[in-house]
Order: sequence, then structure tokens, then C-alpha cells
Amino acid sequence: MSREGLLVIVCGPSGVGKGTILSALKERNGNIRYSISATTRSPRQGEEDGVNYFFKTREEFEEMIKNDELIEWDEYCGNFYGTPRSYVEQTIKQGYDVILEITVEGALNIKKKYPDCVSIFLLPPSFAELRRRIVGRGTESDEIITKRLEAARKEIEQVDKYDYVVINDYVEKTADSLNYILHSEKLKYTRNTDVLQRIGMKD
Amino acid sequence: MSREGLLVIVCGPSGVGKGTILSALKERNGNIRYSISATTRSPRQGEEDGVNYFFKTREEFEEMIKNDELIEWDEYCGNFYGTPRSYVEQTIKQGYDVILEITVEGALNIKKKYPDCVSIFLLPPSFAELRRRIVGRGTESDEIITKRLEAARKEIEQVDKYDYVVINDYVEKTADSLNYILHSEKLKYTRNTDVLQRIGMKD
Repeated sequence: MSREGLLVIVCGPSGVGKGTILSALKERNGNIRYSISATTRSPRQGEEDGVNYFFKTREEFEEMIKNDELIEWDEYCGNFYGTPRSYVEQTIKQGYDVILEITVEGALNIKKKYPDCVSIFLLPPSFAELRRRIVGRGTESDEIITKRLEAARKEIEQVDKYDYVVINDYVEKTADSLNYILHSEKLKYTRNTDVLQRIGMKD
Repeated sequence: MSREGLLVIVCGPSGVGKGTILSALKERNGNIRYSISATTRSPRQGEEDGVNYFFKTREEFEEMIKNDELIEWDEYCGNFYGTPRSYVEQTIKQGYDVILEITVEGALNIKKKYPDCVSIFLLPPSFAELRRRIVGRGTESDEIITKRLEAARKEIEQVDKYDYVVINDYVEKTADSLNYILHSEKLKYTRNTDVLQRIGMKD
């Protein structure tokens, strides 16, 4: 019922299936917009600039930081990732819910600046399953896989910093859960303090 | 994902359509159980003892209070209403979500005793519409209608004490909203503090 959109953080370790879930979520909910992150990491096969990420050089990224054009940024596995400010703030004002798919550290920074944001952590059904998914992707070297698994363990241990935790066992079920969280959050009284005016009981 | 069920308080002024919404909710969600209140008010047409309410004399009701058999009770428009304890506590332990349809004062008492409960306030689309619904019901005298409208206004002014607020404009939409809230609440991290054990990352 609230008019301003939600700022929603979706986190989870590499390999948990964030991309698949967020696509399935978009099919269920037309009010969602995805923020596109800026990153210094190299594009993976099939990734496009301006669609999956804004691919930047380290120099360009540092310039964005200097100009306060990012609402959060973080270094992860040797690369920078950040969220461009203007898109997020404009889109929320228009009433859309903006989803940020960001790192754990980035999420904690956002929560400080935007205390009304909603944070969701996606977990794999088991850690063993996460390992299988990361290895099965086949796009990374052994060294990178080990690094990602270590990073995943550290990220997962911070699950207690999040508002919601969803185990991604079935894509459709997980996407439903995220959709329910978004709807439900908008019904919180704290996001509807003008409700008595809306039903004509106050001027 | 949590194993214990939720305690859910659904409040709203007389005439807001609680009964209809709660029936529609049950069609969507098989995990719900309704607590049956005890009351000293007279049965309305079609109401059955042990189905809609446990109809009690004032003496019987006072005996239940004395024996601590009610988790909350309140007086409303000259009648007592209360929630029998044993059913609620057993049903939640079995993993079902128990819905209490109670008065505002009753709800505030429950929140003190069960801080993990979820409270939802149903509002009419407008106060004028609420008046039409109460008058249209045609089962009450003018004096009772005036009393109920005054009570409704006072109840609605306490909407800020609730976690969620849902405007009941369309039954199906409202029932969906309540269903989303229930699903979403179960995904809160605070209700899933054992999640790392569940995915095999902790003993």
C-alpha cells in the first residue's frame, strides 16, 4: 500500500543461484527493477555491458567512488563491485522495488545508509550442494573455486545480519518466497503511517 | 522454514469482514488453525457453540479466568471474549499457525506475553464504507450500531500498535496479503537461528 518502492538487498554465496531466482522473481512481480552493478571483473561468457554489469576499468571505478556516484562498493575476490546511486534513488521514488544483488559487506553498508531496506540471504540446501554447483559451473580454475568456497563460508556465517533467510532448494518455491517477502514488507504499519488519512479518518 | 507455528493476531473493527477474509485465507493455506474464542455474548443467527465460539455464561467465563485457562480476555460492548490457552499452545507446538481473531485490547495483552506473535490489523477501504457494512448487516439495533461505530473508531486509532495493516478492499486480494505475511514471517532470520545447522555448516 506504500507509494515509495522498497530497496531490497539479495545476497548469497557465489553458486547459490541468485541469477536464476531473480529472473523467476521478475516473472512473478512486475513492480521490480534490478539495479545494474558496476564491476572491474572481466565479463563471463554471454555477459553484456549495461545488461549484466557495467564493466569498468579500475581507474574508471575509482573515479566513480571519488565522485560519490556509488551508494556502496566492495572488493570481492580481487575485483571491485558497486551500485550506481542515481538509478536506485530515482526508481524507488517512482514506486518500483529495486533489487540489489550485492556482496555481504556492500549489504551492511547499504543497511547503515538505508535502514528501511529489506535484506534477504539466499542459502544453498547444503554446503556440499554449493560445492557441487560451483565446481559444476566449469568456468573457473581450481584456485578460484577454492577461493570462492572460502569466501562462501565466510559470507554464509554472516546470515544473522539479514532480515530474511531463504533456502534455495527449488527455484519456483524460492522465487515465490521472495515475492511474498516483498508484498508483505509493503504491508508493515511502519511503511504505512498515513493509512488513517487514506481511509478518510484523518485530514 | 521454522518448525514451530506462528501465533497470528488478526484484528479489525466489527464489520470490516474478518470472517470472510479468514475463510478465504484458510482455502489458500492448509497450515492454519483457528482458535475458537470463549464469549458471553449471545449467538447470532447461524452461529454454533464450539464452532464459531464457545458460548459461556458470565459465571462460567469468570471461572475460566480464575483458573488461568485463558491467554487473554477482554470486555467489548458489554460482553466478555477470551482465548482458551491449551488449544493455542498445543497447536503451535505441532507446527500449525494459529490465528486469533480478537479485540484490540486482547491483542495488546497477547503481544506482551508472546512477543514473537504477528499482529495484523484489517481496515475498511473507508470509514464511510464501514458504516454502510455495519448498517447493511441489519442484525443490530440503532443503539448497537452507534456503539459499534464508536468502538470501531477507537479501535482503528490503535492501528499503530500492529505489525501489519491491510486494507480490505477486495476479499481475494486481502486473503492473499495475509497469506503472504504468514509465509514471509516464517522466513525471518530471527525465526530460523538454527539455519546453519540445517544446511550442515554447524553441528
